[in-house]
Amino acid sequence: MTETWYGQACGQPSQEYRQRALVRQRQLTKPEGALGRLETLAVELAALQGVDQPVAQRVPVVVFAGDHGVTAQGVSAYPAEVTVQMLHNFAGGGAAIAVLARELGLPLHVWDVGSRATTAIAGVVSAKTRHGTDDFSAGPAMSAADLDAAFDAGRRAVETACGDGADLLVFGEMGIGNTTAASALAAALGPLPLDELVGAGTGLDAVRMVQKKNLIARALGLHGEAITAAQSPGLEALQRVGGLEIAAISAAMIAAAQRRIPVLVDGFIVSAAALAAVRINPGLRPWLLFSHQSAERGHIRLLEALQAQPLLALDLRLGEGSGAALALPLVRMACALHNRMATFAEAAVADRGGSA
Amino acid sequence: MTETWYGQACGQPSQEYRQRALVRQRQLTKPEGALGRLETLAVELAALQGVDQPVAQRVPVVVFAGDHGVTAQGVSAYPAEVTVQMLHNFAGGGAAIAVLARELGLPLHVWDVGSRATTAIAGVVSAKTRHGTDDFSAGPAMSAADLDAAFDAGRRAVETACGDGADLLVFGEMGIGNTTAASALAAALGPLPLDELVGAGTGLDAVRMVQKKNLIARALGLHGEAITAAQSPGLEALQRVGGLEIAAISAAMIAAAQRRIPVLVDGFIVSAAALAAVRINPGLRPWLLFSHQSAERGHIRLLEALQAQPLLALDLRLGEGSGAALALPLVRMACALHNRMATFAEAAVADRGGSA
Repeated sequence: MTETWYGQACGQPSQEYRQRALVRQRQLTKPEGALGRLETLAVELAALQGVDQPVAQRVPVVVFAGDHGVTAQGVSAYPAEVTVQMLHNFAGGGAAIAVLARELGLPLHVWDVGSRATTAIAGVVSAKTRHGTDDFSAGPAMSAADLDAAFDAGRRAVETACGDGADLLVFGEMGIGNTTAASALAAALGPLPLDELVGAGTGLDAVRMVQKKNLIARALGLHGEAITAAQSPGLEALQRVGGLEIAAISAAMIAAAQRRIPVLVDGFIVSAAALAAVRINPGLRPWLLFSHQSAERGHIRLLEALQAQPLLALDLRLGEGSGAALALPLVRMACALHNRMATFAEAAVADRGGSA
Repeated sequence: MTETWYGQACGQPSQEYRQRALVRQRQLTKPEGALGRLETLAVELAALQGVDQPVAQRVPVVVFAGDHGVTAQGVSAYPAEVTVQMLHNFAGGGAAIAVLARELGLPLHVWDVGSRATTAIAGVVSAKTRHGTDDFSAGPAMSAADLDAAFDAGRRAVETACGDGADLLVFGEMGIGNTTAASALAAALGPLPLDELVGAGTGLDAVRMVQKKNLIARALGLHGEAITAAQSPGLEALQRVGGLEIAAISAAMIAAAQRRIPVLVDGFIVSAAALAAVRINPGLRPWLLFSHQSAERGHIRLLEALQAQPLLALDLRLGEGSGAALALPLVRMACALHNRMATFAEAAVADRGGSA
């Protein structure tokens, strides 16, 4: 494990810059703590970036796409061909994440790490060894070599996206069927009870949600023991019940943290990728900031397993990295407040109980 | 009442544009409802603005300041002179709302409608008949003529702020002691139990919180009956236990709604002003969008009384309009998604259960 790139250390947040940021927060012209979560966010980002003035201006978004063999079992409200159709929609600028990226000035990178697309799509990087995973209710989703390739794609995507510099990274996903894979991953790695994990995804009714849950239960019966017994349960789970885009995101997070770039984590699928990545390399955890709690039923449990407190709860359940993009202005404003508010001394304002 | 400007009708949201917006939301390339609260927000704004493409680009921020005679009773963690010091800090650009306004490109207007400032402050409009209210634990906070003047200032501030056009308005406040006035208002007008309303404000300890609650209880003993018996309990409560800046905000909200401009409501104090304004002119209510649930203890009850669901809950307790400013990017992104995402037909993406 120590010989793999993704096993290498992620580095520590700077305690020195955390302390300096805490001191500055107490000097700003507001009651102590009055900016709530934005204060802790600015302090955390200062520690992660190792700077006095944290920033979130250069924020590449990388969306990874992959297809899922398990869709043959009817686990999604949408047909599997939507994954490829949405790749065109990302590149064409009509998808939610494309609109948000334009609105916020974020470079958008789209990587196809395993969709069923058989022809090149303009504006989409193709980096895949296969077209979709195998049905994990019948066997492993992918081979060890496929997992390696997805990890390699995730790492290369981060290298490419950070070529012009990056203060923070957002990863998104597209893959019809991937709430099923994410639920299986979270159940295996939490471990978390399936009853509290499995939700409607893009819009299943109650009957099909039960079918989805039963299917995942069967899959965990098939793979659970091998996952628990493996040298790296995180890797084993990704290979057996994960997805190519999910694995790429796990790898991309580790690659980002190794470069000391924090990640603003999106919703349910990306959080499942985060859980796998943290199991593979626990030093990753401090580099993850959590953007939102999604409407997908299991997300709250997944966030608890990651000891994560997200910024938003807006009943989002879209994926694509859209929730992280929506939370980004809060990170930017937390930085602006931290860096640009006047201190009590500068503004000649009396602090509590005293005069200026 | 029908002869006063603030009793005039506020107009209705457009049911036609609401329906058109709902139809468009269903055509966008995402599972129905997947953008959660941002979908309902875009639809609501389309109905309020009476347009197909809602916008929140031109958003003036008006901060109203006033002082409170009740501070003589030690109800705040900060000395009363901080109100005037902060007026300089708003104008000088160092206060949180000034930083946020710059960051978001919002014109910032500061109106002193009753602070203790005795000299002109550059960049602050002075519109006051008195320096601070009287101690409402001993008598009415202000006269009927003072209330009229504060209402007139609120209306004129909206006229001025909207001179260059406005898609949405944000009102903020500054006034040491004003969580005490806001708690008294909410208790009288909700009506709401004091035990669940009174909080720490800018940072009271437990002992002083109890003193604050007892003081408000005494004041309600003094004024409660007159408020309940009045022709307009909203006006009576503002005059007896309100504040000059709170009254100006109530008036400004009504003036905004009468111009068909929605208001993004800030935290505890501004919500108390909203409650008084809705009691004075119930037609105002649809024009209020709620930005956040503050850390101030009573805000959740106040929001319930207004049947309001705020967008954010970040433990903010600063005021100044800062919570509304922090929520504004969500409104802007809700509009961008509504206006600019591709439809299933445009993107040739299959909707659920069908092909494109």
